[in-house]
Order: sequence, then C-alpha cells, then structure tokens
Amino acid sequence: MQNQSDFIVKLIVDAWLGHIKKVDALLADWSDEQLYQEIAPGKNSGIYLIGHLAAVHDAMLPILELGQKRHPELEEIFVTNPDKSGLQKPSAVLIRQYWKEINDILESHFLKMNANDWLQKHTIVSAEEFATQPHRNKLNVLINRTNHLANHLGQLLLLKSKKE
Amino acid sequence: MQNQSDFIVKLIVDAWLGHIKKVDALLADWSDEQLYQEIAPGKNSGIYLIGHLAAVHDAMLPILELGQKRHPELEEIFVTNPDKSGLQKPSAVLIRQYWKEINDILESHFLKMNANDWLQKHTIVSAEEFATQPHRNKLNVLINRTNHLANHLGQLLLLKSKKE
Repeated sequence: MQNQSDFIVKLIVDAWLGHIKKVDALLADWSDEQLYQEIAPGKNSGIYLIGHLAAVHDAMLPILELGQKRHPELEEIFVTNPDKSGLQKPSAVLIRQYWKEINDILESHFLKMNANDWLQKHTIVSAEEFATQPHRNKLNVLINRTNHLANHLGQLLLLKSKKE
Repeated sequence: MQNQSDFIVKLIVDAWLGHIKKVDALLADWSDEQLYQEIAPGKNSGIYLIGHLAAVHDAMLPILELGQKRHPELEEIFVTNPDKSGLQKPSAVLIRQYWKEINDILESHFLKMNANDWLQKHTIVSAEEFATQPHRNKLNVLINRTNHLANHLGQLLLLKSKKE
C-alpha cells in the first residue's frame, strides 16, 4: 500500500534529519577555533569536513531535481581538492551559514515528497540506465548521502573530544 | 502497494550489505598489526572498533527476534567498556571470525524478510510504546545500525591511510 511506502520513506528522511541535527549540535558547541583543528594529526580539519558536507549536500539539489546549487564554488574547494590544497576557503562564519542554508532548503523539499517522488530517477543516471536499474532513484541518493554524513560525523566526533 | 515497500526495503538492506562489504575489504587489506593501531593518538584501536561493531551487530539478533547472541561476552569488552579498560580482548583472528560469522547470520535472515516483517516491533520497545510509536520497528533498527556502521567506518578509514 502507498501508505506503507510513505511510512518507510519517513523513517529514511527522519534518519537524515537526525544526522543533520547531530552536526548542528556539534557546530553550536564548537568555537571557530576548534573547527579549524584537524580530526587527527595530518588529517582533515573540522572546517574542511563541514565544507565538504555542505558542498555534497548542495549538489543534492540538482541531483534530486530540486533546483540549482546555491554555492557551486564549494565543489572545487571541498570536493575536487583536499584540505591542504592551498585554495582559499570561505570563513568559518560563511561555512556555518552555507551549511544551514543548504540543509534547510533540502529539508523543506524532503518534507513535501512522497514515496512516488522519491522513487523517480535522479539526474546522474540516464533514462536508459534507469529502465534496467530502477534502484538508482532519488531515495537511494538520500540513503547513500545519509551514510556519507554518518561517515564524516564519526570523524568529526574525534574533533569534539579534544575539548573534553 | 506491497511491492513498492519491498523494493524500498531492499534499498535499505543493500545499503547495510554494502557497508559490511566495505569493512570486509578493509579487513582483508589490513594485517593484524595494523588492526591494533589507534585511529588517532589516544583514540580507539581498529581492533576495538571491529569488536565494537561485531558486538553491536550480535545484539541485533535478539533485538530483531532472529535468535540469541552468538558471542554475548563481546558486550562487556566492546560496548560497556572503552578500549583501554584493561579487559582482555579476543585475538584479532577471533574477532575477524566473529565479525564474519555474525554478519553472515544477519544477512541470511535479512534476505528472507519482507516489508511487513521489517515493520514489526523490535524487542527493546514494549507493545504499549509501539502502539503509539510505530516507527520503533525493526527497519528503523536496521537504518540506525547502518548509520552506526558508517560512522565507525569513517573512523576506521583514518587507520587505513596509515599505510598509504
């Protein structure tokens, strides 16, 4: 039944929103100075990981047909290139602002989408591919991006414990 | 429709299985010596994180009504207590074996479960709670445990790069 699918989709969307809130809580707790620390010696900084997540989430807008990227400049700095690329990063204030802006937009869309919307093809897959690979749908993007977020959240938590 | 729910459930189960495979690949790549290294100075060792994941996955058996824990002794060592508890840990050989054994059992059950099975209450929630909180079902446990796995996988990847 459709209701059951929508119910399951809500579990998946709630897992996404729950993880966004966990990062929000870390950001509220951290000073900008803490954010610039590395999660481990020689590894990514907190600011890079938040910028990376913001960039990846921004890219979800066109992938899920929800609009254009709000900050396309983030991709080169935080996805294509590593933390120590030498490229100038936006300030911590701006990155915090982008993080919130992008996730708020995604949330406003997600709360309006039903199971049928989520099972449509995303824009990275072609119509031909999707015909034989129907799992390459928008919901799968959300599931994968939630796990991507959880993956980096685990790394960000190493940073948090520095102040304990 | 039921088919749509089962299709969505398969996306969720596949995300779980995909993450198990990622950890399997890391384990195949690492020597036991590498596994004993810390992911960052003073932080958890690789062996502790694998033991922790094995213990949490073992506990999914009773939570999902799939049987008893296979290795209940893991909980005290890898969940209740931290890495540096002084408790004796099983050898890396045994932990690798437990990891595979437990995840194989889970997989064999998961592949037989349909959406209706997954939407039943798990054993941590009471019937009274479940009546008003139907999202506290087995599928939600799977979604949360997949994110838990992704979270620690992100940390394990820090260990991996030591050999690069």
